[in-house]
Amino acid sequence: MDPVKVGVLGLGTVGGGTVNLLERNRDEITRRAGRPVDVVRAAARHPDRPRTCSTEHIQLDYDAHAVVDDPEIEIIVELIGGETLSKSLILRALDNGKHVVTANKALIALHGNEIFARARANGVTVGFEAAVAGGIPIIKAVREGLVGNRIEWLAGIINGTGNFILTEMCYAGREFGDVLAEAQRLGYAEADPTFDVDGIDAAHKLTILASIAFGIPLQFDKVYTEGIGQVSTDDVNYAAELGFRIKHLGICRREGDGIALRVHPTLLPERQLLANVDGVMNAVMVNADPLGPTLYYGAGAGAEPTASAVVADLVDVVREFTLEPENRVPYLAFQAHSLSDEPVLGMQSVETAYYLRVEAQDQPGVLADLTGILSNAGISIEAVIQKQPAPGAETVPVILLTHRVQEFRMDEACSRIEAMEAIHGKVTRIRVEALL
Amino acid sequence: MDPVKVGVLGLGTVGGGTVNLLERNRDEITRRAGRPVDVVRAAARHPDRPRTCSTEHIQLDYDAHAVVDDPEIEIIVELIGGETLSKSLILRALDNGKHVVTANKALIALHGNEIFARARANGVTVGFEAAVAGGIPIIKAVREGLVGNRIEWLAGIINGTGNFILTEMCYAGREFGDVLAEAQRLGYAEADPTFDVDGIDAAHKLTILASIAFGIPLQFDKVYTEGIGQVSTDDVNYAAELGFRIKHLGICRREGDGIALRVHPTLLPERQLLANVDGVMNAVMVNADPLGPTLYYGAGAGAEPTASAVVADLVDVVREFTLEPENRVPYLAFQAHSLSDEPVLGMQSVETAYYLRVEAQDQPGVLADLTGILSNAGISIEAVIQKQPAPGAETVPVILLTHRVQEFRMDEACSRIEAMEAIHGKVTRIRVEALL
Repeated sequence: MDPVKVGVLGLGTVGGGTVNLLERNRDEITRRAGRPVDVVRAAARHPDRPRTCSTEHIQLDYDAHAVVDDPEIEIIVELIGGETLSKSLILRALDNGKHVVTANKALIALHGNEIFARARANGVTVGFEAAVAGGIPIIKAVREGLVGNRIEWLAGIINGTGNFILTEMCYAGREFGDVLAEAQRLGYAEADPTFDVDGIDAAHKLTILASIAFGIPLQFDKVYTEGIGQVSTDDVNYAAELGFRIKHLGICRREGDGIALRVHPTLLPERQLLANVDGVMNAVMVNADPLGPTLYYGAGAGAEPTASAVVADLVDVVREFTLEPENRVPYLAFQAHSLSDEPVLGMQSVETAYYLRVEAQDQPGVLADLTGILSNAGISIEAVIQKQPAPGAETVPVILLTHRVQEFRMDEACSRIEAMEAIHGKVTRIRVEALL
Repeated sequence: MDPVKVGVLGLGTVGGGTVNLLERNRDEITRRAGRPVDVVRAAARHPDRPRTCSTEHIQLDYDAHAVVDDPEIEIIVELIGGETLSKSLILRALDNGKHVVTANKALIALHGNEIFARARANGVTVGFEAAVAGGIPIIKAVREGLVGNRIEWLAGIINGTGNFILTEMCYAGREFGDVLAEAQRLGYAEADPTFDVDGIDAAHKLTILASIAFGIPLQFDKVYTEGIGQVSTDDVNYAAELGFRIKHLGICRREGDGIALRVHPTLLPERQLLANVDGVMNAVMVNADPLGPTLYYGAGAGAEPTASAVVADLVDVVREFTLEPENRVPYLAFQAHSLSDEPVLGMQSVETAYYLRVEAQDQPGVLADLTGILSNAGISIEAVIQKQPAPGAETVPVILLTHRVQEFRMDEACSRIEAMEAIHGKVTRIRVEALL
């Protein structure tokens, strides 16, 4: 089918990431969406500046209005940020009958009510998954996945910079100002960190989340907002002594006959999942009736995670373009005619690390023989625990943790170990994954 | 608008939960979906048996075929389980031009390819969000939210019974058989626990997840499956000594030029989020390019979480019935005309617990005065830490953890504390949330 033609406003970090993603995963996206999604035109403030993406097949403009007015373009992606130019461009795109996808949380939080009304009047769509928690599909989860639930509360770590600072204060004992300076060097925090540190960015996102959770209009001015500037390393340490971690949370909750909207540093019991979301990662927990608590975790910022959410919105729009069944959400995510025949591997060739436990006679040389067998099979050992014999026991448990090895090698080694006279019974083995 | 008419096959645990949910949250669902969703007819094996749901407005049948053949019914929800009758009923419903929603993981894993082809031939839809990880919207997240990504691997705790058993072995040091018996008493495990304990249930779910992650056909027979029966409490303890927890994972991963599909007990480093998913809860981690890791956590089984997923699928179908903009996914989750005017509360009336830190002169009576002020304000204290003075310091830090109290009371108490002569500077206060 014909590619869908997209115009991008803004070729900065996220704009470049979006162009790259659409190009790199073009096959995968086409197999899922049923049509290629191509950026054909883009507006950049400085069209001649070096870019993070190839612009070979893209018509570049200095004036964003030219992109918005191009009759060939079906969807506009707004990635210039701010509230003035971006707003007038989006309204103009909607009036031109184009669908819009945006990552602009401030714009949606402050002017969403107006933008949505304009989209409705023009019979087109606005996607803003990328505006909240980066690549985590939290808007989709709440708006569609939890559609049958009455939501009681929602609490999230929705600003990566703030979470990075608090994490470093917690685990490295560093001071606020010191970590902030590093976050700026690493590009996590803006030169002017006010929006992140004072909680304004989190309040924008909470405004959006609260509306989709409770069905209330966007009301940014009613969010109570407190930053992390007052949290000291002492507080982080005392909180730890009491069994808590400090996180900067956005919380919206039904209380009495109203809804509370608040962003502030918060002590959380250390065993809770949200308390263990560290670094620049984001997570949102939603408590809903009847589902109970669910949590959504992932990268909340950055070019590529944000681009992931932008593309999800683009494909949602593409799927609305037609009612042909093959252009809806395919059952197995990929269009039926484009399932692949990639082979499913036998376990023999799968590689993992291993936990091994054997019962060995308590006599000299057994451990040497054991480790010798593993070493001859090319299997490295990461840790060994040899237990004391229990009173009256003939054998002692020996536990080994190995490095990664293909399953067939481990099968061979285990056969040899089980053949040892000093080993009783079978080898208990459990695979070990580091995952990340 | 007219209600959408739904027929339910099976009024057991999940069937009853679905009827209850649609009734209890009818307003909320109608505000979101744009139309009420009503169960008008249901098939039960024993129509006269006492039920967990009201059947006052539902026509009850003994023969499920009567429901499937009813020309009034637009969507069939299949909740009878098994693979024979359920399959023939679903195929018949599809041939009758009805959309189908099912929670039947075995059926989808084993016969999904055939069922989807039949749906395609009839131009109707099959929803199966409830078949994997209960109420967690994992199918939607992967199929739609991550649509722009190339998925590298996916790993999940997707059987709640198995996770409950391993969690109890880990934290309570109990033996496998003992915990299994309790799980059966609590209704987590079936009388015949084979499907859960041997990993077959997890393999069904992994089959589905692997297909939507990689775009491969459903291939249950190629999943390597190992249960948790061989894991001993000793292994759980030795793993803990080495810094790991044992979880029963379903893993699918691109490896070399193929895909590995496997279900087995797995040691995970104890700081990882997946390692901290306990009890009957489920979680799936997906590693994708360019998004990186995301995690989806929630209740993986039970009447109400499963019903939540069934209703999400129902509303997805309802939204496909029409192209009118107000029947698509509304921007703020609820239809524009049905946003509510629930008030946003001022912080004064919000109730939380508090962490307080003050700098106090190191002299007798200060702590008594401090706690007296809190007690007079009706604020209970949960913990106090009084530090030793640093050499040469005039003051010592005093840290207090309080029970929950409304913000205005804490404001008053803090004013009084700051007025004390023995207190230097302001009270540092950070709110404390237990969330769950």
